[in-house]
Amino acid sequence: MIEIERKYLVVSVDYKKESQKNNRIVQGFLNTDPFRTVRIRIKGDQGFLTIKGNGNEKGTTRFEWERQIPVNEAEALFKLAEPGSIDKMRYEIRVGEHLWEVDEFFGENEGLIVAEIELKHEDESFERPSWLGVEVTGQSKYYNAQLSKNPYKKWQH
Amino acid sequence: MIEIERKYLVVSVDYKKESQKNNRIVQGFLNTDPFRTVRIRIKGDQGFLTIKGNGNEKGTTRFEWERQIPVNEAEALFKLAEPGSIDKMRYEIRVGEHLWEVDEFFGENEGLIVAEIELKHEDESFERPSWLGVEVTGQSKYYNAQLSKNPYKKWQH
Repeated sequence: MIEIERKYLVVSVDYKKESQKNNRIVQGFLNTDPFRTVRIRIKGDQGFLTIKGNGNEKGTTRFEWERQIPVNEAEALFKLAEPGSIDKMRYEIRVGEHLWEVDEFFGENEGLIVAEIELKHEDESFERPSWLGVEVTGQSKYYNAQLSKNPYKKWQH
Repeated sequence: MIEIERKYLVVSVDYKKESQKNNRIVQGFLNTDPFRTVRIRIKGDQGFLTIKGNGNEKGTTRFEWERQIPVNEAEALFKLAEPGSIDKMRYEIRVGEHLWEVDEFFGENEGLIVAEIELKHEDESFERPSWLGVEVTGQSKYYNAQLSKNPYKKWQH
């Protein structure tokens, strides 16, 4: 129930050519507080309820609890969500022994593309694909919960 | 997923004599907002995750989604809860064709005893037991989520 992840910006669209799979994801939040984030996710015909705790100092590890739920229940819960939702396409890209998840955001977060890798250990090494930009691990403004309230298009670029 | 309930204060402890069953319940909240209440309940060796929406005008009906979860997961999620928790003994009392749930609160809510009945229809009639006091249906200060933040002992009596 502890997730170890690192997050990066993406600097080119080359990840699309290397992707084996993509899925549209829509998310709403019953709480966006980083200490007790409650997320409703609809991914195709699947629903998920996810609860996350606060991260460690570096932002690499975070408590995460997730349960798949019927999509009609996820849709009902989505209606209770706070104003502001997340709409994105998720691309899965296998690089070496790791799976990268690249999220291309739409709507109020259009223009933002973020890559995440899940690790088994905090210090685990991994191959860096050509399209990987700067690391943003632990920067809370890139948390989806924060993006739902303060979306990318409103940032001072 | 719509619950119809009425809630009353309790004026004597006679309900204990009529009770067939009681359980200690501990609850924490990942959100106390009445529009999107997220509750973690530990009841003996059972865990529950419950999400409630806003009630109707009279407070008799409310959207409710509940899932039983392993008690160790409930305990882990309880650690993420907002400050303030609920500790109570729940007595079940069958009166005629209905089941009353009487909650005797402890800790910061000691002194408060509340009875709830679940109905199939808003206008359904039911037998009133001798220990039943005034109705408090829809009064948000009696919601457990609100009691966790503004407990009974702090009220102006």
